[in-house]
Amino acid sequence: VAERESQIVLGLDPDPSDLWPGSEAAAQEGLPAVSRIGMAVLGHCHALIDATAEACVAVKLQLARFEALGAVGWTLMGALADHARELGLLVIADGKRGDIDVSARAYASALIDGLQTPFGRLEGLGADLLTVNPLMGADAIEPFVTAARSVGSGVLVLVRTSNPGAADVQDLPVEGGGTVWERLATIVDDLGRPGVGEAGLSDVGAVIGATEPRHLQRARELMGAATFLLPGVGAQGGRVTDLAPAFAPGRAGGLITASRSIAGAHKATGAPPAAAAREETERLRAAAWALSA
Amino acid sequence: VAERESQIVLGLDPDPSDLWPGSEAAAQEGLPAVSRIGMAVLGHCHALIDATAEACVAVKLQLARFEALGAVGWTLMGALADHARELGLLVIADGKRGDIDVSARAYASALIDGLQTPFGRLEGLGADLLTVNPLMGADAIEPFVTAARSVGSGVLVLVRTSNPGAADVQDLPVEGGGTVWERLATIVDDLGRPGVGEAGLSDVGAVIGATEPRHLQRARELMGAATFLLPGVGAQGGRVTDLAPAFAPGRAGGLITASRSIAGAHKATGAPPAAAAREETERLRAAAWALSA
Repeated sequence: VAERESQIVLGLDPDPSDLWPGSEAAAQEGLPAVSRIGMAVLGHCHALIDATAEACVAVKLQLARFEALGAVGWTLMGALADHARELGLLVIADGKRGDIDVSARAYASALIDGLQTPFGRLEGLGADLLTVNPLMGADAIEPFVTAARSVGSGVLVLVRTSNPGAADVQDLPVEGGGTVWERLATIVDDLGRPGVGEAGLSDVGAVIGATEPRHLQRARELMGAATFLLPGVGAQGGRVTDLAPAFAPGRAGGLITASRSIAGAHKATGAPPAAAAREETERLRAAAWALSA
Repeated sequence: VAERESQIVLGLDPDPSDLWPGSEAAAQEGLPAVSRIGMAVLGHCHALIDATAEACVAVKLQLARFEALGAVGWTLMGALADHARELGLLVIADGKRGDIDVSARAYASALIDGLQTPFGRLEGLGADLLTVNPLMGADAIEPFVTAARSVGSGVLVLVRTSNPGAADVQDLPVEGGGTVWERLATIVDDLGRPGVGEAGLSDVGAVIGATEPRHLQRARELMGAATFLLPGVGAQGGRVTDLAPAFAPGRAGGLITASRSIAGAHKATGAPPAAAAREETERLRAAAWALSA
């Protein structure tokens, strides 16, 4: 964050029906549909990364969109992660995975550190951060933390998400005080304590929706050393100016992720997509940087 | 279930370091590691399906293990799902996905019904059932239910999982009564009401760990029409004889999933893996069938 002077995460969330104009040029006629879609999505994502990288600290791959492309989608994720790294960006794998021990370990192999097998080594995606769903409890999060910690990566645990339905479960009041999401915050803080580095931030962070800023102050009280990934700015209604508590432990205490508001910026302004995306990303970057000074 | 006289789900959870002897013969020398691993895993899973299919109603793909193989893993899942269908088995995609609206829809496209794009149609995995994580609330589950219902598939929502850590979050007591998992059960029942079919079972079911049978009776009270997917029998300590409440609405009210206890049956008996797996599967099938009579 300090090096790039940015807390902005470019969300890669490609909808094959809403790619940038010109992306279809990459989809050669006569090839099977999945190849054409793959090429178009790759072209779109490359253009989006190249337009905005200078104002970003990371890209976030929304795994759902790539899985919808099947095997091709996994190949694309690897290529885009490599490209982002070449541009000096971190890579966040946003898959919200969560499962019992051996399965959590397999997800971590896929997304972070690969796997040694009797047949040779399998490479993982090499993500610097990955999102994890904590519903199954601490023992389902630990394999991710262990795998990430062993290679200097980190985990971002869902604590209070940005969607309206988040209240259904995460806001339930727990007997004895607090809510479910506050209990999740406690788990995050516990798991993260052994992973606090020189900058005072832990390798176990939290996803906290920017759509409910009243939760941010409380989240920061409960998780003093966690990096917050803050979705929901832009398309979902959250505002940068509401995010100050995230930055209490330092500028890297909050990472603002935006997808549709960047990729779709041209729809409001009529400017070329790349120019509009660059401008919107820089606007977010400058606003967050000033706020967290 | 009636047609196959079985409530047993074969879990496909292949660990490349623990494949059946002989699987390595499928992994041709000289090929890249990922191809060799893919071939060996495919050989192992085919042998496991062929050995046990007659006593099963479904296969369950543990997505984590296939994701660890990257793009090759997705290709393998498609091939194994096709093979299972040819043998008359249902296919369960166990990915425990959960995300906001558009992302949940993309996961559903990947795992169930595919996606129409301007470049042509993408096929999905065609799963008959898929597991979903409800932490993000009802609006994150609904896109899965809608997609599944439109093609006659169904959803299995995590309610009370089989791992020890499940208690951390799912067993939290909620102010006003009940636990988090009981609230999840209420969401499942609500979402499933419009999807109750002729057999009295809904297209929204629940994952209930077989390791805590005391929860089963309560779960059945709260979700009268839900099919329960029951993991945890065998390797995790659950017993078939504890599962009677699952079958209250009928024999298809409970699906017993077993992975390591079937694939690893030969380790205890010394019999050939296929024979040991067949025997263990038939033992489980007969026990559940008798119990649910």
